[in-house]
Amino acid sequence: MTTAEPIEFWFDFSSPYAYFAAHQIGPIAARHGRELRWRPFLLGAMLKLTGMSPLTEQPVRGDYARHDWARLARLHDQPFRLPDRFPILSVVAARAFYAVEATAPAVAGPFALDLLTAFFGRGIDITDSARIGEIGAAHGLDPELLAASAREPQWREALRLRTDEAIAKGVFGAPFIRVGAEGFWGSDRLEMVERWLETGGW
Amino acid sequence: MTTAEPIEFWFDFSSPYAYFAAHQIGPIAARHGRELRWRPFLLGAMLKLTGMSPLTEQPVRGDYARHDWARLARLHDQPFRLPDRFPILSVVAARAFYAVEATAPAVAGPFALDLLTAFFGRGIDITDSARIGEIGAAHGLDPELLAASAREPQWREALRLRTDEAIAKGVFGAPFIRVGAEGFWGSDRLEMVERWLETGGW
Repeated sequence: MTTAEPIEFWFDFSSPYAYFAAHQIGPIAARHGRELRWRPFLLGAMLKLTGMSPLTEQPVRGDYARHDWARLARLHDQPFRLPDRFPILSVVAARAFYAVEATAPAVAGPFALDLLTAFFGRGIDITDSARIGEIGAAHGLDPELLAASAREPQWREALRLRTDEAIAKGVFGAPFIRVGAEGFWGSDRLEMVERWLETGGW
Repeated sequence: MTTAEPIEFWFDFSSPYAYFAAHQIGPIAARHGRELRWRPFLLGAMLKLTGMSPLTEQPVRGDYARHDWARLARLHDQPFRLPDRFPILSVVAARAFYAVEATAPAVAGPFALDLLTAFFGRGIDITDSARIGEIGAAHGLDPELLAASAREPQWREALRLRTDEAIAKGVFGAPFIRVGAEGFWGSDRLEMVERWLETGGW
């Protein structure tokens, strides 16, 4: 690695593992002086391609995941309760994110983190554009403009392009971290990501 | 955790991730003064129940796994080459293991580690009972008795029972580490296992 490649953090707003990792990826990027690019996409599109179903619907693996999420929450001292309605279609939240990234990039990362925390930590329905507007207001964003963003063609298109990009890059799960062309799947690979950043790869 | 529960290391002799983890689990058990129980089973039986296919046959995820195995080999400085014939049916190796565990328990762990290393590090065909006999000979075992073990009803039955036990315990992948009733899936969870052992759980 000769230049300081940015870190891409690919995730779906409906992924508990992304929620846990999202709280760690910012500090990791900061420690290594790397730009962090939040990249929400629609994981469902990729699951279709890989023949996978949502984790909670998988026999045995779903039970393990539920236990594991509670365990990770206690380990990282993060509030967590699997929402009654889960998984959700994260399209409204993801389009809102790309609207914010394009118009107020400085708050895009904190906004993404707040959306994940609202959903998994406080049970707020982030498929509801009014709730998304309220979360944005805390970051100085116009709640009504934000609530309307999910219906606007340009953010619809932005999300579609990012989801295509995820598929093209082989991003098959969430979270999926990329440093240059090097991909790392899963919240349990953050230590390896950090080692990769420290050493320049091996 | 009030008593020092043993560590169960569930794996399939055809799992590269188990190969990488197998070299670390012994030192982890030793550091925490825990008994280590090697528990080969037939992962294919569980894949059927969870609707999964072997990793290398999965679109996109298979490519990632191949890249990841090479990366883990370099990281841990372990020889690794994905055998031409892969995955294999590990039934011969697993039955031989249970024969050794019952008759020469002190060498069972080192023998299991050698089988994994022979297959993934040196490309030796561990579906061939003659090769298994040779590997056992290095541990002072009778190569002919060992080579014959896969055909003996008692070791056939031992493996069947262990595979049933794996299914009953929700062991859906390899490696899968259990400390008491607490399960940890994946070679990338070894640090969490160690933390669990250090703290007594959280």
